Amino acid sequence: MGTPLASRSSFASPVALRVTNDKEMDVAIQQISMSLASGQKPVVIGLAADSGCGKSTFMRRVTACFGGACKLNPIGRETNTLISDMTTVICLDDYHLNDRQGRKKTGLTALDPRENNFDLMYEQVKALKEGKKVMKPIYNHVNGTLDEAEEITPTPIIIFEGLHPFYDKRVEELMDFKIYVDITPEVKFNWKVQRDHEERGHSIESIKQQIEARKPDFDAYIDPQKNKADCVIQVLPTNLVANDKTHLNVKLIQCKGVDHYAPTYLWDEGSDIEWVPPRNKLASSAPGAGLKIYQKTEKWAGKDAAVIGMDGKYDKIDEMMYVEKQFASTGSKFVGEITKKMLEYEGQPGSNDGTGFLQTITALKVREVYEGIAKVKVPAQAN
Amino acid sequence: MGTPLASRSSFASPVALRVTNDKEMDVAIQQISMSLASGQKPVVIGLAADSGCGKSTFMRRVTACFGGACKLNPIGRETNTLISDMTTVICLDDYHLNDRQGRKKTGLTALDPRENNFDLMYEQVKALKEGKKVMKPIYNHVNGTLDEAEEITPTPIIIFEGLHPFYDKRVEELMDFKIYVDITPEVKFNWKVQRDHEERGHSIESIKQQIEARKPDFDAYIDPQKNKADCVIQVLPTNLVANDKTHLNVKLIQCKGVDHYAPTYLWDEGSDIEWVPPRNKLASSAPGAGLKIYQKTEKWAGKDAAVIGMDGKYDKIDEMMYVEKQFASTGSKFVGEITKKMLEYEGQPGSNDGTGFLQTITALKVREVYEGIAKVKVPAQAN
Repeated sequence: MGTPLASRSSFASPVALRVTNDKEMDVAIQQISMSLASGQKPVVIGLAADSGCGKSTFMRRVTACFGGACKLNPIGRETNTLISDMTTVICLDDYHLNDRQGRKKTGLTALDPRENNFDLMYEQVKALKEGKKVMKPIYNHVNGTLDEAEEITPTPIIIFEGLHPFYDKRVEELMDFKIYVDITPEVKFNWKVQRDHEERGHSIESIKQQIEARKPDFDAYIDPQKNKADCVIQVLPTNLVANDKTHLNVKLIQCKGVDHYAPTYLWDEGSDIEWVPPRNKLASSAPGAGLKIYQKTEKWAGKDAAVIGMDGKYDKIDEMMYVEKQFASTGSKFVGEITKKMLEYEGQPGSNDGTGFLQTITALKVREVYEGIAKVKVPAQAN
Repeated sequence: MGTPLASRSSFASPVALRVTNDKEMDVAIQQISMSLASGQKPVVIGLAADSGCGKSTFMRRVTACFGGACKLNPIGRETNTLISDMTTVICLDDYHLNDRQGRKKTGLTALDPRENNFDLMYEQVKALKEGKKVMKPIYNHVNGTLDEAEEITPTPIIIFEGLHPFYDKRVEELMDFKIYVDITPEVKFNWKVQRDHEERGHSIESIKQQIEARKPDFDAYIDPQKNKADCVIQVLPTNLVANDKTHLNVKLIQCKGVDHYAPTYLWDEGSDIEWVPPRNKLASSAPGAGLKIYQKTEKWAGKDAAVIGMDGKYDKIDEMMYVEKQFASTGSKFVGEITKKMLEYEGQPGSNDGTGFLQTITALKVREVYEGIAKVKVPAQAN
């Protein structure tokens, strides 16, 4: 901590920028490097989410908006850090205080704040935001060990994802934009049954016990962070038909009055709308209405929020071009950018429901927030 | 019947056209006269509706779309015929076979086809459509007598309104566009209670008896005509809150595949939409959502129909400019034409609910149908 920035990617000398083949990207990074040279600071994004929530696809959607390939930090051993030319994604599990063995001794879960080193987290988020490189510990998810630290060199965007990005007030206040992924208990249970019961043969009873055991800490320490978020992606069971355990109702809750964050809207800002597209424009094999898109104004933790939701599924991602066109203020740089980005994740979980659409919009909004704070333009990715 | 056309308004010599002060109108009428000269026939519109359904305001909304003042035929005695430069509105009660005394002898209601002279109706609709003037009988609503006939000279638009415009197949087939106003029994009852019980002190029991007495004939002869309509304005009790007897849910059912008739739509054609505008854009003192606008695709008498509905009320007609802008294919000739036309009927029954909005759109559609058939353009009314 505290050491001057050096070595990697965009923060290196202008010569190092030439390694990229994409000319536009090159220009963009130069712009950013230049603004950093004149006092530009990295923009820091927080993503709070439980494990097993599809964070990895979501993070790739976000980093893809800034161009360049995204890969694990190439340190030649286990790491949780994803890097691309302009982005770094840091997993907050790296700030666990004890390894798996240590937690067995304390008897506490990783959800418990006492098992996390918030002082170090704060110091390192702060240092990175100031443009300084840090030596960050690594929590090895395979072995459950705390491994030798890795060097993190700040990039224009740094994303901190994990269980507690907004738990510690000092860390929370460093976040320029706060996202919470809220998987409702019913959906978590359905997903766990699908994976652990149907695919692995665990009993329903044991699954329930596992969930119940984790619930008190989750409710006490993780869940309340959603009230601090600027934007929440909430995943609920479908409302289209009763007792459907496979289709989802996904809501994007966009708080108003957040700097550089303009909520997207359907047709008419501020209106409550329920929209069922006709099947000949948007095929859907989901039951009932197939796909219902809605918009409403709600309160979220006392703040006014513009909500966009999508219940059900669409069969063909390329037909989402039609849906995309009905939305305004999406953060896209050309007509069809959302659909194009969704097509890149075809086959991923959530790629054919509200998850894919609303994660993509949120990714574009992260880019917009970045542009607003950094006062630079990220070129549209033509790849 | 059969006499060549002469004398009045637009069908007279080009010189007579000069009587109008409105230059644009003058040009339009000349165009029409010219097309009539080369074989142009009047366009015939049918409007089926029970008595006491607000037809009079509706008819004024329609005739206003063609410019010029609309007034009773100036024959110096009781008449039901409304005329303006381009339009004639004929009441089909004029084809009653017997006067009120006569019906007392037969014991039949005016709803009964046997009390209506369909042969004469057919002959006269046909003659007028061929551009010939006719001597039409007059049913005197004040005295219940059949009065001396009046001369009707065809105008470019002739509207036949009343109980049986589509009952007789021959008459129906002459109609270029067919509108049915469908007041549902609950609403009819509520209206009658309001007028006859609350304002005139009749007992609820006597009102029910009156309605019941009329119902068999209405159901047998009037109601089935709605299946032949190209367009239905249906008035139902509000769905916004339970047991509300004052607010209305008004639907415009637009059959597809009708020549020269392109249904209006909200935002996206073919989509099912429910829309509640925010109160700060559209004030509403109605309970619940205040005003809900919806769109859906339904079957109407076996035909595909595009339905637009409006449930509840709006407090300020001028704010409807905002609603108007969300609709496409309204038949308007400039942005704001619907709102402007609605403002002209401020204070009339239905002027602050779906009645006003959907009657106005239907009026504009009548103009559009006319333009399509006659192959002329009616200038927008700037008055």
